[in-house]
Amino acid sequence: VDEERDRATIVLFSGDLDRVLAAFNIAVAAASMGMETEIFFTFWGLNVISSGRRVHPPSRPLQRMMQLVNRGGVKRLRLSRLHMMGAGTEAMKRLMKEMRLPSMEEMISLSKDLGVRFIACTTTMGLMGMKREDLLPEVDELAGAATYVEKASRSKVNLFI
Amino acid sequence: VDEERDRATIVLFSGDLDRVLAAFNIAVAAASMGMETEIFFTFWGLNVISSGRRVHPPSRPLQRMMQLVNRGGVKRLRLSRLHMMGAGTEAMKRLMKEMRLPSMEEMISLSKDLGVRFIACTTTMGLMGMKREDLLPEVDELAGAATYVEKASRSKVNLFI
Amino acid sequence: VDEERDRATIVLFSGDLDRVLAAFNIAVAAASMGMETEIFFTFWGLNVISSGRRVHPPSRPLQRMMQLVNRGGVKRLRLSRLHMMGAGTEAMKRLMKEMRLPSMEEMISLSKDLGVRFIACTTTMGLMGMKREDLLPEVDELAGAATYVEKASRSKVNLFI
Repeated sequence: VDEERDRATIVLFSGDLDRVLAAFNIAVAAASMGMETEIFFTFWGLNVISSGRRVHPPSRPLQRMMQLVNRGGVKRLRLSRLHMMGAGTEAMKRLMKEMRLPSMEEMISLSKDLGVRFIACTTTMGLMGMKREDLLPEVDELAGAATYVEKASRSKVNLFI
Repeated sequence: VDEERDRATIVLFSGDLDRVLAAFNIAVAAASMGMETEIFFTFWGLNVISSGRRVHPPSRPLQRMMQLVNRGGVKRLRLSRLHMMGAGTEAMKRLMKEMRLPSMEEMISLSKDLGVRFIACTTTMGLMGMKREDLLPEVDELAGAATYVEKASRSKVNLFI
Repeated sequence: VDEERDRATIVLFSGDLDRVLAAFNIAVAAASMGMETEIFFTFWGLNVISSGRRVHPPSRPLQRMMQLVNRGGVKRLRLSRLHMMGAGTEAMKRLMKEMRLPSMEEMISLSKDLGVRFIACTTTMGLMGMKREDLLPEVDELAGAATYVEKASRSKVNLFI
């Protein structure tokens, strides 16, 4: 029976705040309409579901270096344009609050309440030396590209963001 | 009967000239082939369908600040790479003209002539303090993410650009 | 009978190393699962399948200028973030090698071995003054947006990367 619900599958490759917001807006809308909705977090998108502090520092020097220059955590996401050393991103967050739009933290809980599934890409995790404990508890599954493609081929809406 | 035509639905999130050109090339090709084609303009993509002069300046200081640093209008779109303070974008536009490719202004009329529908995202409009009068007359509809998802779930081709 | 296999069609617009890697990971997974998989290379994505040395220098001055600032070839691809004048991109490539992940050159042969078809966008080629001889021999077809849309409308998975 589950197969009969329409599915939406979003690859979230980007870690730019504006693109991440767009992805979650679409995911929340799809889940609200009863679609089986999944977000597959890969590459910079993993920053969204990273806890922001690494429980186990990665073993390889290159991974530790990458971690230093690319610290994860939803609070650290930046706009793709007009970041302006943080001022633009801060202004956008304040404006969203003034307009009573949900923050990214609220979008994450809202999407989970609506049943959106979070899948973390194992290839990127391996590359960056990340473990399950480095991710938010909200993550439902760790999987690779084959799992993604299998899900995508059964989805009505497929997006790469 | 309308339901029986194939549909293409493009989210145009980006305001980069090169990505916008790609989106319109695909939309024009889809509409030429008889597909029911819609572009859903959101976030920086709204710059494409913004008239470029704001009839009503937005009410909030943060919105006025955003407007100053992110002036819309199709003539102000920049390449995502090689903008080079305007020189690269200008060179690309000149080259397109030399090669007799349509300019973005021409792509907009061409796509409208072929029946491509333009939908503006109400969430971004609210965030930026934009009103219907700030957009080109070519815009057919204002709608939110739920309308987009409903259309996307009935489309054969869904892209996020 | 060919029509009965599921299809995946990826537009590769980007020439960023990270996005290109994501596109090839998905293409390789789709082809491994028996899907008819095609990558349509357009705009900066043409850099991936450019041989990196132009056999015939383009005729127009603006095209020669573009070629100077946008030299193609898979070895020249850069990360979209953390390129850091080359150091970040180099570190990522070294890390991929340490982790025994295939390099982009290996991804290209792997995808061809699995039957992924490479299509080069004729509009961008014309704009940039590129000829068939400027592309890798692995390219299967030159085509425009109409061919792409026709293929996309028969595909289960459509992505714009």
